[in-house]
Amino acid sequence: MKVWYTDEIVDATPVISSRVRLARNIKKYPFLVVISPEQSKLLVEEVETALGSHFTPISLAGKNDIEKRGMLERHIVSPEFLKINKPKGLMLQSDERICVMVNEEDHIRIQTISPGDGIDTAWDTANKVDDLLEESIQYAFDKDYGYLTSCPTNAGTGLRASFMVHLPMTERTGNIRGLLPAVSKFGMTLRGIYGEGTEPLGHIYQVSNQVTLGKSEEDIVNGLKTITSQIIDNENKLREKAMSSIRLEMEDQFFRAYGTLTHARKLSGKEAMELLSAVRLGYLTQTLNVPKPGKTLYEIMMSIQPGSLQSAAGRELDENERDVFRASYLRGMFKK
Amino acid sequence: MKVWYTDEIVDATPVISSRVRLARNIKKYPFLVVISPEQSKLLVEEVETALGSHFTPISLAGKNDIEKRGMLERHIVSPEFLKINKPKGLMLQSDERICVMVNEEDHIRIQTISPGDGIDTAWDTANKVDDLLEESIQYAFDKDYGYLTSCPTNAGTGLRASFMVHLPMTERTGNIRGLLPAVSKFGMTLRGIYGEGTEPLGHIYQVSNQVTLGKSEEDIVNGLKTITSQIIDNENKLREKAMSSIRLEMEDQFFRAYGTLTHARKLSGKEAMELLSAVRLGYLTQTLNVPKPGKTLYEIMMSIQPGSLQSAAGRELDENERDVFRASYLRGMFKK
Repeated sequence: MKVWYTDEIVDATPVISSRVRLARNIKKYPFLVVISPEQSKLLVEEVETALGSHFTPISLAGKNDIEKRGMLERHIVSPEFLKINKPKGLMLQSDERICVMVNEEDHIRIQTISPGDGIDTAWDTANKVDDLLEESIQYAFDKDYGYLTSCPTNAGTGLRASFMVHLPMTERTGNIRGLLPAVSKFGMTLRGIYGEGTEPLGHIYQVSNQVTLGKSEEDIVNGLKTITSQIIDNENKLREKAMSSIRLEMEDQFFRAYGTLTHARKLSGKEAMELLSAVRLGYLTQTLNVPKPGKTLYEIMMSIQPGSLQSAAGRELDENERDVFRASYLRGMFKK
Repeated sequence: MKVWYTDEIVDATPVISSRVRLARNIKKYPFLVVISPEQSKLLVEEVETALGSHFTPISLAGKNDIEKRGMLERHIVSPEFLKINKPKGLMLQSDERICVMVNEEDHIRIQTISPGDGIDTAWDTANKVDDLLEESIQYAFDKDYGYLTSCPTNAGTGLRASFMVHLPMTERTGNIRGLLPAVSKFGMTLRGIYGEGTEPLGHIYQVSNQVTLGKSEEDIVNGLKTITSQIIDNENKLREKAMSSIRLEMEDQFFRAYGTLTHARKLSGKEAMELLSAVRLGYLTQTLNVPKPGKTLYEIMMSIQPGSLQSAAGRELDENERDVFRASYLRGMFKK
């Protein structure tokens, strides 16, 4: 299968992608805080063996900081994983739809991504990887508490399911302010594109479950689906309303964004994400009748983040150089 | 000769155009305030006869408000002239370089325009028209006070000479604030593109003499030249400095302006003038390497004013319709 973010479906609706993460620990090893380097090494080997030839182990030792940052931007690894100073492992499938981190906060973090509204696929896939691992590994499991995890907030199902959603109209109308508390009430959370504590960029948010304990996996996924579909319904309604009441202003915004994207000589990440957000909405509403770029907008959005950008440049760039390279990269992307 | 604003020289330096205005009154008629409609009619006929076949009389009676506003925007008539409710006359040459208003504030207002830094040409031309009129008309003239005018501030030479200048860097750097008092000290004044009480649009200013009495025509014109050349030197220096110290930011600004001009679906007059100002500077510094429009930027600037725009549309447009038509007109202008 092709890399998930190259699938056109990531640009087709407000739902960019669906993700599932399972936190697992192996019974015979102590948790991350106390695990020794030797045990960590054995742990990594054990997981690699269990996953067998289905995955390519990625050596982080061979990656420089820029490449690591790029992996973070592509959601292959977590910021926490990069910080850990013990032997750790990363297994990835070439379509980047499944990655397994070994010795992250938990011994094993299975992560699956599907383009668009593909949470069932992501969930199925995660389950299959989970089953594959269980064939040779004994998880730390308690019949009352479920899967035991390094941090108790992940115990129980060890499941975090999430949708990456593009909510330009919810943000533009200020509806986003009411959304956060509403989502919280249902044990869900709304965060920026790069997770906790990061600013939302390009009006992109992650909706995910907060609670992992005391609910079945099915309840968690279904609850997330319900909440997200309400968020998306609302976004769609706001968009339709705007497209009928202030159509011209909307079109003006899309075309201006496109004009700036295709002409600017300097673009900060924040501004570029806002412009791409407007262009995405322009294509989605079929009012921005200009040729689409060769990549999906979501892939472009990831490509202009600092790590990916410097990887593309093949060298470290300071902020100013990045802004210049980003503008040049974007002009190239949208070149007729 | 071609219409003055179609000459490429209007875009080539900060000096867009040079103008000379001579205020004259005919001895045998009373000033505007007291002149009767019958006398006004005779006055208009007399001036038309004196100018003979060199000019085309323009009938204002046949013009609607939109067309009149367009003439104002092209500097053919003054706002005061349009307001006068007595018989009045307008004579124009087809290149719009000479126009004569009859029964404006004074009986006769000779106005000459030259593209770029052509004040000597404008002054020569005005003198020739003045001589032509004097062949058959006796001016109200006092050997001590010079030419007598309806308003004493114009008495003496009756001369107002002015330069239309584009000062984006002087404005951007805030230098413009110090310029007004400096210019005043020399009996000169700095006003917006459409004269007294109008906001400067697109960083375009008129520098003109304030004082008409007690100085020779030559002194007035030379004084204006000196002041203007200092203003222009300063603008050029500021531009060169910026183009070496913040070249990229400048280029970014030019290209963004071009991107917006060629893509926006709605543009207010104020914003469009600012964008055209940036594009003018981009061409002038030879950094905006995109095809030039078929018209001079200064002609485009005049064409997007409300009157000219509605003339082009062939009907009245409200503000919102104008903004949409303006954006569409500008996209057409810059179409590759």
